[in-house]
Amino acid sequence: MDSNTGWREQLRIIVFQSDTTAGRRFDKILLVTIFFSLFIVVLDSIESVHKDFGWLFTYLEWGFTAIFAVEYALRLYASPKPLKYAFSFYGLIDLLAILPGVLAIYYADAQYLLIVRVVRMLRIFRVLKLSPYLKQANYLLSALRGSRQKITVFLLTVSTLVTVFGTLMYVIEGPEHGFTSIPKGIYWAIVTLTTVGFGDIVPKTPLGQILSSLVMILGYSIIAVPTGIFTAELANAMRGQQLQHDCPVCAKDTHEQAAAFCSRCGNALFAKAGSGEDQQRGKADIST
Amino acid sequence: MDSNTGWREQLRIIVFQSDTTAGRRFDKILLVTIFFSLFIVVLDSIESVHKDFGWLFTYLEWGFTAIFAVEYALRLYASPKPLKYAFSFYGLIDLLAILPGVLAIYYADAQYLLIVRVVRMLRIFRVLKLSPYLKQANYLLSALRGSRQKITVFLLTVSTLVTVFGTLMYVIEGPEHGFTSIPKGIYWAIVTLTTVGFGDIVPKTPLGQILSSLVMILGYSIIAVPTGIFTAELANAMRGQQLQHDCPVCAKDTHEQAAAFCSRCGNALFAKAGSGEDQQRGKADIST
Amino acid sequence: MDSNTGWREQLRIIVFQSDTTAGRRFDKILLVTIFFSLFIVVLDSIESVHKDFGWLFTYLEWGFTAIFAVEYALRLYASPKPLKYAFSFYGLIDLLAILPGVLAIYYADAQYLLIVRVVRMLRIFRVLKLSPYLKQANYLLSALRGSRQKITVFLLTVSTLVTVFGTLMYVIEGPEHGFTSIPKGIYWAIVTLTTVGFGDIVPKTPLGQILSSLVMILGYSIIAVPTGIFTAELANAMRGQQLQHDCPVCAKDTHEQAAAFCSRCGNALFAKAGSGEDQQRGKADIST
Amino acid sequence: MDSNTGWREQLRIIVFQSDTTAGRRFDKILLVTIFFSLFIVVLDSIESVHKDFGWLFTYLEWGFTAIFAVEYALRLYASPKPLKYAFSFYGLIDLLAILPGVLAIYYADAQYLLIVRVVRMLRIFRVLKLSPYLKQANYLLSALRGSRQKITVFLLTVSTLVTVFGTLMYVIEGPEHGFTSIPKGIYWAIVTLTTVGFGDIVPKTPLGQILSSLVMILGYSIIAVPTGIFTAELANAMRGQQLQHDCPVCAKDTHEQAAAFCSRCGNALFAKAGSGEDQQRGKADIST
Repeated sequence: MDSNTGWREQLRIIVFQSDTTAGRRFDKILLVTIFFSLFIVVLDSIESVHKDFGWLFTYLEWGFTAIFAVEYALRLYASPKPLKYAFSFYGLIDLLAILPGVLAIYYADAQYLLIVRVVRMLRIFRVLKLSPYLKQANYLLSALRGSRQKITVFLLTVSTLVTVFGTLMYVIEGPEHGFTSIPKGIYWAIVTLTTVGFGDIVPKTPLGQILSSLVMILGYSIIAVPTGIFTAELANAMRGQQLQHDCPVCAKDTHEQAAAFCSRCGNALFAKAGSGEDQQRGKADIST
Repeated sequence: MDSNTGWREQLRIIVFQSDTTAGRRFDKILLVTIFFSLFIVVLDSIESVHKDFGWLFTYLEWGFTAIFAVEYALRLYASPKPLKYAFSFYGLIDLLAILPGVLAIYYADAQYLLIVRVVRMLRIFRVLKLSPYLKQANYLLSALRGSRQKITVFLLTVSTLVTVFGTLMYVIEGPEHGFTSIPKGIYWAIVTLTTVGFGDIVPKTPLGQILSSLVMILGYSIIAVPTGIFTAELANAMRGQQLQHDCPVCAKDTHEQAAAFCSRCGNALFAKAGSGEDQQRGKADIST
Repeated sequence: MDSNTGWREQLRIIVFQSDTTAGRRFDKILLVTIFFSLFIVVLDSIESVHKDFGWLFTYLEWGFTAIFAVEYALRLYASPKPLKYAFSFYGLIDLLAILPGVLAIYYADAQYLLIVRVVRMLRIFRVLKLSPYLKQANYLLSALRGSRQKITVFLLTVSTLVTVFGTLMYVIEGPEHGFTSIPKGIYWAIVTLTTVGFGDIVPKTPLGQILSSLVMILGYSIIAVPTGIFTAELANAMRGQQLQHDCPVCAKDTHEQAAAFCSRCGNALFAKAGSGEDQQRGKADIST
Repeated sequence: MDSNTGWREQLRIIVFQSDTTAGRRFDKILLVTIFFSLFIVVLDSIESVHKDFGWLFTYLEWGFTAIFAVEYALRLYASPKPLKYAFSFYGLIDLLAILPGVLAIYYADAQYLLIVRVVRMLRIFRVLKLSPYLKQANYLLSALRGSRQKITVFLLTVSTLVTVFGTLMYVIEGPEHGFTSIPKGIYWAIVTLTTVGFGDIVPKTPLGQILSSLVMILGYSIIAVPTGIFTAELANAMRGQQLQHDCPVCAKDTHEQAAAFCSRCGNALFAKAGSGEDQQRGKADIST
């Protein structure tokens, strides 16, 4: 039993962590397998390739399903709390990786299974989660979190603009120029405001073109807003977590994270270190 | 009479404010109604849906008009100054929300009423106005206000570029390549400079393509300008700028953010650096 | 004679400056005239309008030419150094404003004169030059100047990318897919890298589409470069001109523009105010 | 022999460096030759020009090959370690510049040689390397280096988005609307997410258009991410970050940029605030 628990613990370290050589090797093999399975899905969708190698891809898909099934079983076995793992975000994604292969037995040519097979790509982030890139991803995430409310206000404004302009274009241009309904008008407004400009629906009347010009310049200008929001937040996130505390003397309100004294006026930031004991402190510092 | 005033006051709090549970519930119901009425307008514009459910949508529109009319009446009744409310920005928008339903009696299929019905969407910002998002919206607005003059200079430059390049292209490409007039040329220049690129009008002559390349690279580069302006202003709005503190000696009242000494007279700005204990500390410093 | 000089001086103030009411009124009339003349040029280029009102526009153009000619004569007369004015940038632009009307006598339908007529728009900046917008324009210009060298490096890199990718696409796609020559390939590369995407020339081969994807993601990412350059420079320009001088004690290298003492360590920044006299200084400050 | 070494050393300075007048002249001539050879390549690819001047361009190409061969020989001769030079990045590029001319003897019309001939453009950066632009390029490079990991995370996220959305669109729209395979779907997703929007493949079904709108708004918003990353890094690279100065008491070695006092022990970081004169000043402060 004891050696069994030890073996299980060792397996858990290999499967769930990446601090050991074996753990990193496991992650790398997994990463390569995921990419290879994705590559097969993509390749299989090309008509001419499917005709010649479709049979091979079916076998390979069976192989990948087997590998991912074994991996899922290992994770369930090695996990200290199998149920909690099974219903966690990554646990469900891991299960999803097996599903298409199993379902394909019943529904032979089900197109919609493709999406599930591609969702496997999300598993890359599981591996990424354990790497040095995590810190960088955290900067980006904390900047996104910090700008969430501003982005919401921005997106609400964009939605309003797009709805109003889409309706205006529907009324002005009408169905004869491709604006067959308000949703179509909104679609056009989004295509234009985001400066994508497919060109499948374009204004033909002079009034429509004037309105378009307005939408385009608006879109060109307000791209500055999310950029500005995100840049300001990221600069904040990168400057490092700072201590938010008003200095009792000079009211300086941000300090280095471990600051005990204000860097501007030299006074103690917190009650205890302050006032009377201050004189002894200099010597005490040296004696310690 | 007194209980009437109290009831009216209570109504005012529910209808105009969102600090109470009842007030927030009123706002939420209003928000849902607005979105639902918008959804109906958008859906009704689709030909196939209109054929089957047009009669239902007409009834629903009557319902929304009734709801908004009741709401408008309540606001007029609850407002301490009904006339001031009626002619305020949101008062007019609230009135506009009823108008299409009433006008539809006389003008059955009036397309232009659609725009008025969509303008109801602006009422969302009335609800937003009372929420915690306000602070974030204020950051954005103050950054926009701060960059207004710079943006004006930028837009004037863009207008000039667009007019000159539009005329150049009209002369170079001519009507046979779609540049039928200078306004058309300006429209093309806007489509190109903003990097939208519909592709409905494209240069065909070598000279026109060289000029286009110039416009595109220009547009790609000067998008940096509004972004830079807005980012710099937003960063300003988000951090406190300068230290507001009178120098005890020369009374200079603004300093660099982290200034410990006055840059004009060199004296310490805050107590500790100039206080009595300073003498002991100074020696301790030297003795170590 | 003396009253003549006085009158001329007064005329100079009205025509060249905008500090007086008369000067501002002159600028406003000029601005309106320029915009109106531009509007006529643009309107005249529309075929249907030209048919009906072409005769009217010809007369109006004569009127504008007369007005601008009178203005040019006034400027020449009022200028203290007429020759210097005549060969200055704005002097030449002012002359250009008259030219098309005069040349139109000989070359009736000269299309190329249109460009000269539109170049009149540059005269708007002459009026702008004298307005409160100047300060904002200066911020933008100083940021552009500061980022000039970085932008040059960036544009050279973009040129190289565009040439190499254009040639690659010409070789891969070939004339049968619209890439008839290397210049055409470069044109396509610019259209794609700047995210304009007209769609008049698009890759058809798989290899071409893979390469396109690379160019697009590159273009999408490196737009960050000019934006970053400009934002950083503008933030610098807006922070106010700073004193670049190493503090002799703590080596702090930027200070407020009028700083005499370092705001970090309180020591004199320049030799004379320093060392021995330092003790007297405090009192001297007060006595002065 | 000695004079030979001297001559070789002098040649090395001219060929490899740009501090002397002769060195700069050599660089300029090289730059002009490279640009001229590029210009010929580009011109030669235009069908109509090739017909008339193709024979001339062949001779010119021979000339350029001769010049670059002589230059390569000179560099090999002047270099103190010819082998190391030959296998360095620029050594190989220099060799590549001769190759097409030599290979053209055997393969008359080899299209792929064009690419090699255009790669000569990279040699411009060799000249740039020795110029005052180097410092500016270094700012940009150090900002890019600093943002490398963040950009990797960003590109991985973009790749995942593009793959998932491309597959979704392939399933939703299908081959009848141009989405013939998943790679085609991914190509469309890249075209849309980067806001290029060629318009060669566009969604036709309502569901496809809704999904497209999502992709477009996503693309429009996340362009903020690389811009934010790069701007924040460039701003970092352009300003000195933290104060590097040992605290005389506790030896803490990095401080906030404008720190006057150590935030750990509260002692003054620089002489004046703790020196002898401080005592007089302190009282003067209080007496005023």
